[in-house]
Amino acid sequence: MRIEKDAIGTLKITDDAYYGIHAKRAAENFPLGETRKVDPLLLKGLIQVKQACAETNYLTNNLTKEKFQAIVEAGDELQQNFEHYQQEFIVPNIQGGAGTSTNMNVNEVIANRALELLGHQKGEYQFLHPNDDVNRSQSTNDTYPTAGHLALIKVSSQLTSTVQDLIVEFKKLAQKNKHVLKLGRTQLEDAVPTTYGLSFQAYADLLQRCKQRLQIAREKLLTIPLGGTAIGTGINTTTAYQQKVVPVLVKRTGLPLKQAENLIDAVQNTDCYLETADAFKNLATSLGKISNDLRLLGSGPRTGLGELKIPKVQAGSSIMPGKVNPVIPEFVNQIAFQIIGYATTVTFGVEAGQLELNAFEPVMFQDLLDGARLLTAGIQSLITNCLQDLTINEDLCQSNIEHSAEIATILAPKIGYAAATQLVKQALSQKVSIRSLLQSKDFSTEKIEQLLSPENLLGPKCVKDKALAH
Amino acid sequence: MRIEKDAIGTLKITDDAYYGIHAKRAAENFPLGETRKVDPLLLKGLIQVKQACAETNYLTNNLTKEKFQAIVEAGDELQQNFEHYQQEFIVPNIQGGAGTSTNMNVNEVIANRALELLGHQKGEYQFLHPNDDVNRSQSTNDTYPTAGHLALIKVSSQLTSTVQDLIVEFKKLAQKNKHVLKLGRTQLEDAVPTTYGLSFQAYADLLQRCKQRLQIAREKLLTIPLGGTAIGTGINTTTAYQQKVVPVLVKRTGLPLKQAENLIDAVQNTDCYLETADAFKNLATSLGKISNDLRLLGSGPRTGLGELKIPKVQAGSSIMPGKVNPVIPEFVNQIAFQIIGYATTVTFGVEAGQLELNAFEPVMFQDLLDGARLLTAGIQSLITNCLQDLTINEDLCQSNIEHSAEIATILAPKIGYAAATQLVKQALSQKVSIRSLLQSKDFSTEKIEQLLSPENLLGPKCVKDKALAH
Amino acid sequence: MRIEKDAIGTLKITDDAYYGIHAKRAAENFPLGETRKVDPLLLKGLIQVKQACAETNYLTNNLTKEKFQAIVEAGDELQQNFEHYQQEFIVPNIQGGAGTSTNMNVNEVIANRALELLGHQKGEYQFLHPNDDVNRSQSTNDTYPTAGHLALIKVSSQLTSTVQDLIVEFKKLAQKNKHVLKLGRTQLEDAVPTTYGLSFQAYADLLQRCKQRLQIAREKLLTIPLGGTAIGTGINTTTAYQQKVVPVLVKRTGLPLKQAENLIDAVQNTDCYLETADAFKNLATSLGKISNDLRLLGSGPRTGLGELKIPKVQAGSSIMPGKVNPVIPEFVNQIAFQIIGYATTVTFGVEAGQLELNAFEPVMFQDLLDGARLLTAGIQSLITNCLQDLTINEDLCQSNIEHSAEIATILAPKIGYAAATQLVKQALSQKVSIRSLLQSKDFSTEKIEQLLSPENLLGPKCVKDKALAH
Amino acid sequence: MRIEKDAIGTLKITDDAYYGIHAKRAAENFPLGETRKVDPLLLKGLIQVKQACAETNYLTNNLTKEKFQAIVEAGDELQQNFEHYQQEFIVPNIQGGAGTSTNMNVNEVIANRALELLGHQKGEYQFLHPNDDVNRSQSTNDTYPTAGHLALIKVSSQLTSTVQDLIVEFKKLAQKNKHVLKLGRTQLEDAVPTTYGLSFQAYADLLQRCKQRLQIAREKLLTIPLGGTAIGTGINTTTAYQQKVVPVLVKRTGLPLKQAENLIDAVQNTDCYLETADAFKNLATSLGKISNDLRLLGSGPRTGLGELKIPKVQAGSSIMPGKVNPVIPEFVNQIAFQIIGYATTVTFGVEAGQLELNAFEPVMFQDLLDGARLLTAGIQSLITNCLQDLTINEDLCQSNIEHSAEIATILAPKIGYAAATQLVKQALSQKVSIRSLLQSKDFSTEKIEQLLSPENLLGPKCVKDKALAH
Repeated sequence: MRIEKDAIGTLKITDDAYYGIHAKRAAENFPLGETRKVDPLLLKGLIQVKQACAETNYLTNNLTKEKFQAIVEAGDELQQNFEHYQQEFIVPNIQGGAGTSTNMNVNEVIANRALELLGHQKGEYQFLHPNDDVNRSQSTNDTYPTAGHLALIKVSSQLTSTVQDLIVEFKKLAQKNKHVLKLGRTQLEDAVPTTYGLSFQAYADLLQRCKQRLQIAREKLLTIPLGGTAIGTGINTTTAYQQKVVPVLVKRTGLPLKQAENLIDAVQNTDCYLETADAFKNLATSLGKISNDLRLLGSGPRTGLGELKIPKVQAGSSIMPGKVNPVIPEFVNQIAFQIIGYATTVTFGVEAGQLELNAFEPVMFQDLLDGARLLTAGIQSLITNCLQDLTINEDLCQSNIEHSAEIATILAPKIGYAAATQLVKQALSQKVSIRSLLQSKDFSTEKIEQLLSPENLLGPKCVKDKALAH
Repeated sequence: MRIEKDAIGTLKITDDAYYGIHAKRAAENFPLGETRKVDPLLLKGLIQVKQACAETNYLTNNLTKEKFQAIVEAGDELQQNFEHYQQEFIVPNIQGGAGTSTNMNVNEVIANRALELLGHQKGEYQFLHPNDDVNRSQSTNDTYPTAGHLALIKVSSQLTSTVQDLIVEFKKLAQKNKHVLKLGRTQLEDAVPTTYGLSFQAYADLLQRCKQRLQIAREKLLTIPLGGTAIGTGINTTTAYQQKVVPVLVKRTGLPLKQAENLIDAVQNTDCYLETADAFKNLATSLGKISNDLRLLGSGPRTGLGELKIPKVQAGSSIMPGKVNPVIPEFVNQIAFQIIGYATTVTFGVEAGQLELNAFEPVMFQDLLDGARLLTAGIQSLITNCLQDLTINEDLCQSNIEHSAEIATILAPKIGYAAATQLVKQALSQKVSIRSLLQSKDFSTEKIEQLLSPENLLGPKCVKDKALAH
Repeated sequence: MRIEKDAIGTLKITDDAYYGIHAKRAAENFPLGETRKVDPLLLKGLIQVKQACAETNYLTNNLTKEKFQAIVEAGDELQQNFEHYQQEFIVPNIQGGAGTSTNMNVNEVIANRALELLGHQKGEYQFLHPNDDVNRSQSTNDTYPTAGHLALIKVSSQLTSTVQDLIVEFKKLAQKNKHVLKLGRTQLEDAVPTTYGLSFQAYADLLQRCKQRLQIAREKLLTIPLGGTAIGTGINTTTAYQQKVVPVLVKRTGLPLKQAENLIDAVQNTDCYLETADAFKNLATSLGKISNDLRLLGSGPRTGLGELKIPKVQAGSSIMPGKVNPVIPEFVNQIAFQIIGYATTVTFGVEAGQLELNAFEPVMFQDLLDGARLLTAGIQSLITNCLQDLTINEDLCQSNIEHSAEIATILAPKIGYAAATQLVKQALSQKVSIRSLLQSKDFSTEKIEQLLSPENLLGPKCVKDKALAH
Repeated sequence: MRIEKDAIGTLKITDDAYYGIHAKRAAENFPLGETRKVDPLLLKGLIQVKQACAETNYLTNNLTKEKFQAIVEAGDELQQNFEHYQQEFIVPNIQGGAGTSTNMNVNEVIANRALELLGHQKGEYQFLHPNDDVNRSQSTNDTYPTAGHLALIKVSSQLTSTVQDLIVEFKKLAQKNKHVLKLGRTQLEDAVPTTYGLSFQAYADLLQRCKQRLQIAREKLLTIPLGGTAIGTGINTTTAYQQKVVPVLVKRTGLPLKQAENLIDAVQNTDCYLETADAFKNLATSLGKISNDLRLLGSGPRTGLGELKIPKVQAGSSIMPGKVNPVIPEFVNQIAFQIIGYATTVTFGVEAGQLELNAFEPVMFQDLLDGARLLTAGIQSLITNCLQDLTINEDLCQSNIEHSAEIATILAPKIGYAAATQLVKQALSQKVSIRSLLQSKDFSTEKIEQLLSPENLLGPKCVKDKALAH
């Protein structure tokens, strides 16, 4: 056991622990247990920030070469061998203190590993100090959100790329099914014909906008508050440090980061996390709509709409034999609900920021990082387990159109809306098709064929062509 | 009384009513009363759409000149004399039917007024028909959301311009108070110094991003589904109509509208309304944070923070004499809560879209239009009644900094974090200032002056300069 | 013009205005216009409170009989002739100041009308003063929420009674259709048989719980903070007043109100409004689920599930002739979305309460009162325009059961889940019925009849009997 | 490797796996990884249900004694040695299929362990089958929600008991500080005096209502759908089973469970989960309000309100030495935000139920179980790390009251609201106390003492006594 000391008093720390007094107190203050570990990407982001700051301090003559190298080496080790060290990060993902505890946890772990690399014992902070050296020229106020940005940028990139995969999948489905007619439905009621090609393309276009929102939100995250230190004034840094620290992090991460023009603003306002949460929410809502459609169009097999054949990926019931359910869209629906809830949490967190800081970043980062991972996993499963082998019951679709009375819409401009209404009512009450009704009237077979041909029913060709062209 | 007829049957309509059978049925089906009138801008948007479609139909030989002119003239009258005609729009703002009832209400009112202009009686639809003529080449599916876009574009523009006014106001406050020192607070606890200039600038920068979000969301709304008719196929239109209808509306409205490339997508997906709702929400959340800060910093007069002097605009209590409250920020806070709630409503509405249509646009449009108006009114009151005469208790601010023990932060790089911690603890427990503690140690007066000078405490000059420069 | 004076200064007031300086300032501070009038029930509640307080003050020798009678008479007039006086209540429903402006608006209107009744001019407050007399022994802190409770109790009672009507309607439908078989669906996929009687009864039982939640929430509102005056200490009241004021209000309103045991708590905490908002939300969510089911089961007429025949109450499309949509359930869905959004607003409002008061009651009351009215109107329309004439396509339902392969569930305990699974797969792939498959195996006709009889397929009789019994 | 078979096909399963084909497919279909394990209490609840059903089947001659005993023994082992077996439950907590995968995962693990106990190999389902035996007389539709209820009842009980601890703590603080005067604040502005005793009692009373809501919601969960099997008809069960199964579970769990009267309703409607989520939300919102107050009243140490001395539990900053932050209330605030978000998720889930089932229970159970644990941990930390050692800066509180001008409220009934207003304005502008102003007027020292005595300022004694009595 070694004894560590802080503003509160002293505490015994197990000899083999790389964490220190701050982390230990925090773990006791926020007793959430194993299932609420801080996201690895957030910790790795923080380590990268520590390395970049140490390098900048060294370059601006504010840290010895020896300390700089030890910090960087320790940081490299921690990242490369993260699973081994993960148990040292003992502060849970929801924590008071605006991230200070996770920042200090990282400072302590790096310091103690660096001390060992320098030939000292853990806890001999007189040789290399968690605050004075590892945290030099830094505050939680700037390093913690910067690390959050690094982590969010990473998960958001992966999510964006997965959304792109989904767009490609829907475009494939659109091309493959562009000649498959389908009776459109508005308000769940029979409407006029369209094609499955157009339906899938509509999903692709919707997702394209969602992807763009992710990109716009992610773009904002490239602006970081690093250099702001306490409350964004840059106190305890030098002009030279300010000029170098972000370029050094850019070099180390390969990301086109830039320092916020107004660090005071960047430290205190978290609107960009809300923008990210809402971009996730919009995507979630869109995935929800698509999943609802898939489940509805695939309902059956005997008494549902039955137009889509959703791949069977697992048995559906413990009691009903042979039942198969649309489990993948249901999975996506639930992920969507979770993400929408997370956006509520982030909304509350952002609104609650006070004066020079928002103390509620920990729960926001947690929900955003978890949210991005959930969405990514959900979409990947949707592609692999549902869309790639999705097929259409074309015969049923064709028959639905023939049956529908709403193809009489095409007649309205010719015979008037009121007369066409009578025709539809007659078709429905007599349980006959519009085609047969027309035959019993003055319409020639030729005229009927022309009127009820898909080309005619589907509206002007230019509309479809434009929709499928992009 | 005249008798009108539809697919359901017949109904008596008062002779002087311009609305017809559809609107009357709908008013009975959705009995919400006087307080839930459809937003005037939505109705005017729909009238403009009707005029543009009539013109396009005329230009493409699909409507007689006489009918076209009557429709346009009726539409002009309705807009110019809107208050007179408002009572004819009897369908409430929440309605089933995906907007069909409001679309038909407008079709009927235009038709009946146009009939009169043509020398006929109301209800003589054989001469000019609500569906066959006024709604010609249209469906609720494309005209109703198009009208929604027109209305939203208008309120969103006004809101954006009001946000810009607020930015200007905060920038003025920033310039005016750039030399006013202020003790920063993180987590409501004393932190290091900053200036009110930087604080106000941070609000301006936050709002700048909110404004940009409004603009991005508004940009999307310029893409309209007009021409899509039923479910976006453009059924019952011609290629010529497709080419002309949006350009005609552009000409008539002066807005840079463009037709959606994929009308199927544009008719069925409402993600852009969610983007708008979330842009409003982000602004609301930001205004909420700012209002919270203003109320907190203005708290007192005797036992609060008391740094800001919020203008006194009304007596604060019915029982406590002389009490004055921060009623304007409280007003803004509540508007923010309302807007956040509206975003929840829109989220539900968007998620609930099914297949080729989202039937829940009426409640979405209502909340978005009302939301934009509320935000605009709230911001205008904030500028006029709170910010324009806001002043600062500079003496108190200065004294706060002198008193604060956290200015010892500046010493940490010199004497180490641990030693500086002891100093702060000593200052707090002995109730003395850091300055006097330093005097009692080895520090020279000169050194103390240099260390505790505002220039030093506020961090590198480049940080402040950059923050205030843009 | 008369001149009025307050802590801020003086203001000219039109001679015929019953409102005074406070209301006028507030109307300018919160410029929301005509569409945001304070709910009449809230104003009437406040008037009743004023009357009860005047009576109590009189009874405890704290107000002259003359003033007491004038206040009561003025209050009676205002309530009886509310539409005439409504224009005097010029402060909008969202307002800063925790309701002080509406409280003062009422104080002023009562004072000025009472002055006239006493033979004075409006504004001659030396004879009867808005604060000193009308507001005597009161604060906005206790009277405004008390009035809110009175209004909420009223709308909530009406809503509860309307929910009861809906329960009765569903129970009628349950009894009427208890022998109508229906294929159950889980996850939109064919499951095992049930009856429409059971389905409608399930709605009734769900709503019964919703009704109970409304009652529990309403019960809480019977506890009022009246007597608390400023922050709940009862400052400026006497023990005698404390003993009498709530009993007097009970007598005047006929409601079983009781004074909160802890007035400090009752003035500052608004959790009961959140409970009400969430009871509304739970009802809304339940109505949403029911509406979704109705729309789905009524979908068609040709290519949907088509089991329910939803009454046709209006034409469904401006372009598609003869189309009829489930507009009433869609109306209810949208009301549900609005109410869910309102609950978000109230959640934010409640969380934002600070120290001895929650300043955000105005927006909470507004959303709760509007929400209750919307729900009531929606349910009433659902009963009248949708459920009373709802019928079922019994033939289709019967045929669905015959067709379904999942009736093989009944065989699983006999032949094993795995063998039954094979049977279902065979039925689906060969497009034959389970009945015909059984015929082709060793099963006797008698055995098949017994196995596939409704009695057998529907599970133990005791389960159904119990479900329909209550 | 063994080969297992289902409706989809065959799959290789590692020999040592207790899970089977269903679980393996599901784990691949819902790829969420290690961090999203199903809550142990939900799994244990399901195991208990399996045991009770086996016992009931045995008692009603529907399962051999041998199988019954093996199932029960396996279930006991799994529960007692849960950590060892946890890795066998490979399906993540968010999953499509309405819980079928977790139900089957448990069926498989029990079956395979029971097979071993019977001397067979894993996978030899001919001797004891996951569906035919372990799941006998059951469906996921009834067992999964029943298990959810069992788990929720447990966490909700623990949470309720922890809330009770918090109430006790606040009552202790109330008694301890009942003589500590405090200037009340409304809208963050100085109001009239109260005591810290009353403030803490108000928190206790607020939490008392929250506790009651938890109890009411928990009460509902004692009603379970067990026996409903598929969609609640009880298909594949007997009358004897229906009579016994819940009593057997009651005996096994010791909980006063009862079977739902309408099983169709109980299987399909999830409103009780929303009630639970909203009870959690109301508690969270209340905890949020309390935490906000604690942080505000404890703000400082030099430039904040400084009335409360929040225990120092960890160093507050990595850069600012000696800074201490209210990390425990901040922890609670964030938990509150998370719980509010979870309620949104559950609201969406409940609304999305369709027809005879709600397929979205998995995400609801996850958020409710996690939410209850978070709240419990947060409250426990609040008690231990914040409230138990909370003290008050009594001198400052006393001085605040002396300073406040709003004590002039007491004069309003004597000299009139307008005159008292002038007095307050004078006190504020001249920066003097009300006391000294009174001295400069005609008031005798005696009169002043009486007027400004705490007894007088705090309102009628009966109000305080009643508040503190319960």
